[in-house]
Amino acid sequence: MLAALLNKRTKLVAGLMSGTSLDGIDAAIVRIEGAGPGSRIEMVHFSSYPFEAELRERLKAICSTDQSSTPDVCGMNFYLGARFAEAVRLAANDAGIGLAEIDLIASHGQTVWHLPTDDPVHPYRVRSTLQIGDISVIAKETGIVTVGDFRTADMAVGGQGAPLVPYADYLLLRDERHGRIAQNIGGIGNCTAIPAGGKPEQVVAFDTGPGNMIIDQAVLELSGGRLVYDGGGAWAASGSVREDLLAGLMAHPYFALPPVKTTGREMFGKAFAASWIAEARAAGAADADIVATATAFTARSIADGYRRFIFPDMAVRDVIVSGGGARNDTLLRMLAGELPEQQVHRSDAFGIDSDAKEAIVFALLGCHFVHGVPNNMPSATGARTATVMGKLALP
Amino acid sequence: MLAALLNKRTKLVAGLMSGTSLDGIDAAIVRIEGAGPGSRIEMVHFSSYPFEAELRERLKAICSTDQSSTPDVCGMNFYLGARFAEAVRLAANDAGIGLAEIDLIASHGQTVWHLPTDDPVHPYRVRSTLQIGDISVIAKETGIVTVGDFRTADMAVGGQGAPLVPYADYLLLRDERHGRIAQNIGGIGNCTAIPAGGKPEQVVAFDTGPGNMIIDQAVLELSGGRLVYDGGGAWAASGSVREDLLAGLMAHPYFALPPVKTTGREMFGKAFAASWIAEARAAGAADADIVATATAFTARSIADGYRRFIFPDMAVRDVIVSGGGARNDTLLRMLAGELPEQQVHRSDAFGIDSDAKEAIVFALLGCHFVHGVPNNMPSATGARTATVMGKLALP
Ligand SMILES: Nc1ncnc2c1ncn2[C@@H]1O[C@H](COP(=O)(O)OP(=O)(O)O)[C@@H](O)[C@H]1O
Ligand SMILES: Nc1ncnc2c1ncn2[C@@H]1O[C@H](COP(=O)(O)OP(=O)(O)O)[C@@H](O)[C@H]1O
Ligand SMILES: [Mg+2]
Ligand SMILES: [Mg+2]
Repeated sequence: MLAALLNKRTKLVAGLMSGTSLDGIDAAIVRIEGAGPGSRIEMVHFSSYPFEAELRERLKAICSTDQSSTPDVCGMNFYLGARFAEAVRLAANDAGIGLAEIDLIASHGQTVWHLPTDDPVHPYRVRSTLQIGDISVIAKETGIVTVGDFRTADMAVGGQGAPLVPYADYLLLRDERHGRIAQNIGGIGNCTAIPAGGKPEQVVAFDTGPGNMIIDQAVLELSGGRLVYDGGGAWAASGSVREDLLAGLMAHPYFALPPVKTTGREMFGKAFAASWIAEARAAGAADADIVATATAFTARSIADGYRRFIFPDMAVRDVIVSGGGARNDTLLRMLAGELPEQQVHRSDAFGIDSDAKEAIVFALLGCHFVHGVPNNMPSATGARTATVMGKLALP
Repeated sequence: MLAALLNKRTKLVAGLMSGTSLDGIDAAIVRIEGAGPGSRIEMVHFSSYPFEAELRERLKAICSTDQSSTPDVCGMNFYLGARFAEAVRLAANDAGIGLAEIDLIASHGQTVWHLPTDDPVHPYRVRSTLQIGDISVIAKETGIVTVGDFRTADMAVGGQGAPLVPYADYLLLRDERHGRIAQNIGGIGNCTAIPAGGKPEQVVAFDTGPGNMIIDQAVLELSGGRLVYDGGGAWAASGSVREDLLAGLMAHPYFALPPVKTTGREMFGKAFAASWIAEARAAGAADADIVATATAFTARSIADGYRRFIFPDMAVRDVIVSGGGARNDTLLRMLAGELPEQQVHRSDAFGIDSDAKEAIVFALLGCHFVHGVPNNMPSATGARTATVMGKLALP
């Protein structure tokens, strides 16, 4: 089974991504030729399958310290495995491709906890990361070899287990003449800066801070649960940014930390958002101003990260945005305003579907696992060494 | 790396087991020739590495609904991965074997939850099982290919994910002339009954109920934390079995359930033991009587399971005991008393170290994974089909 897979030079791979936004499962079907630096990728199909509100709330609870438990994690690992398998079936069907034609599934899994450094209080909460959505469940339910659970391997060789996308950004977006930043805006924002003609070790990458996470939570609360995101950024566009509140947000110690650094729902999740919204209301901010300020916070923290940790050492022309946040016009406008000397594009302008990008990236990482090709980027994660990330389950 | 492994006909495999007793890590180094039904196993070395009291208590908390959380599971998965890696290093060292000579690690992992059927109350707590001790951490820290996390695959094809040992019991212990039962007594007890000259589909296997779990918890409580088990069964031997209390224990509905059936710490853990001990004390039982009765409960429930679900259809001569409970002389004497028509032996009499047996079994299951050989036993787990269980991580 594995031997047959290795002998196929061109593989049809289903990449699955379910990010910290908890919005649903992104499924990309891609054709990958070869493995390693020279591999070529072509997207065949992309679909997203949204999570229903109840599941989203259960996942938020599992991503908390006080509303989670071992049986929750155990059950959800299987439940999501089945949902991931279903997403592959649906995507294949939507694409008019037989399930048996897909050679490999590569699944990121759902991150439910990410602890880049040992917890100082709880002795057994050591640096670690947890992605759920069992890969054996996916493999058995689809009949397809499945690779997943990438992040733990990078952490085991001293890295932060994140960000993983820079490895693929480097392969897909590096340019001989222009410095570029690939900026993904999912639940969390993360950037990959590649100098003109740069080598892998020159790449600078880090989580910039919240992406859509606080905007989404504000929109959910302020709409009384009716809206789950600010479509096109319209609500933010109708408000004014409260610079006083924004300055308070920018004082968060995360932004001053030098890379390598990663963050997540543990830091900027529901609890953070709720307390900030209460504070903003107490300061007299209108609902639209709260959404506008949350949106400006994402734009400002992204640009602030570049100014602190990238621009001093690297000339950058293009900022190439992907992830659901690329659909928020207000956010993109604010980001362009923060970066007068760069050109801000959606990744689609560079031939990479901005919604599909992360799912495509994980398809590539999974393919590299099968071929034993190291697929982390030590300059981005802080790992001691390049290593083959992932685990494999057989159908 | 994998190709080289497949080409080696004889492999040195480190099997790791950490059972529901939470007593520590059992590490067996075995030489395995071939793969599949004809494979041959020889034990090279065996050691156990005990868990300290604090870790044991943390693990019990993680095995509970109300004292566990996602960050606990996340951190402990990494922490135990490192402990499993250390166990392999120590075992290799104790055996005078270089780490580089070990071809493969096969790790059961630590079960922290096992839910054989959907939870009727919590919609996302679907049938599932969770073993922790990350296999990427093991592989990266040792530099050895690691297979683990077997149970989820069997569940994904409709099985209960347990018991897994019957597959190996059948290979190692079946006899042409005599019906045999392999009885493991770990935290939980489980039996594999193989009729004389029987086929795999004729095997009957199930969890018999608590093994050492309630005895251990009673000893811990009654000794004020000084003792963690009843060495040799001496304490039990000094007390009398209270038949009234034993009858109450035997009324537990688990025993009437027909196989396929599995149980664990969720059912017979700390909470169950604590409430029974309180009841026994209220009924005037002395400490030694409580330990004696808990020990008799294990013996009686094992024999009761045989009488209900094995003896009516199968002639059995030998009962072959393994696991830490085989060191409890009082328990073995009681079991022999319950089974006047059978011969009760330790597995050592059949060439299988009774302490090492489960670690050896997982070494075999891991080796079969690498060769793509199905390694579950549907008649034991209730799976729809034989399947290749396990996940693989690269060093
Ligand atoms: N039309 C849109 N307008 C504004 N924001 C959007 C739109 N579509 C998606 N988003 C945002 O993108 C998020 C999902 O982005 P995604 O890249 O999937 O993030 P993640 O990888 O964290 O799941 C949504 O939660 C929402 O905030
Ligand atoms: N000398 C002994 N006397 C009595 N019981 C023992 C002895 N040694 C070990 N045990 C029992 O065996 C248990 C460990 O058995 P083991 O087979 O490792 O179980 P598990 O697979 O659940 O970890 C201990 O918790 C203890 O109850
Ligand atoms: Mg998403
Ligand atoms: Mg043990």
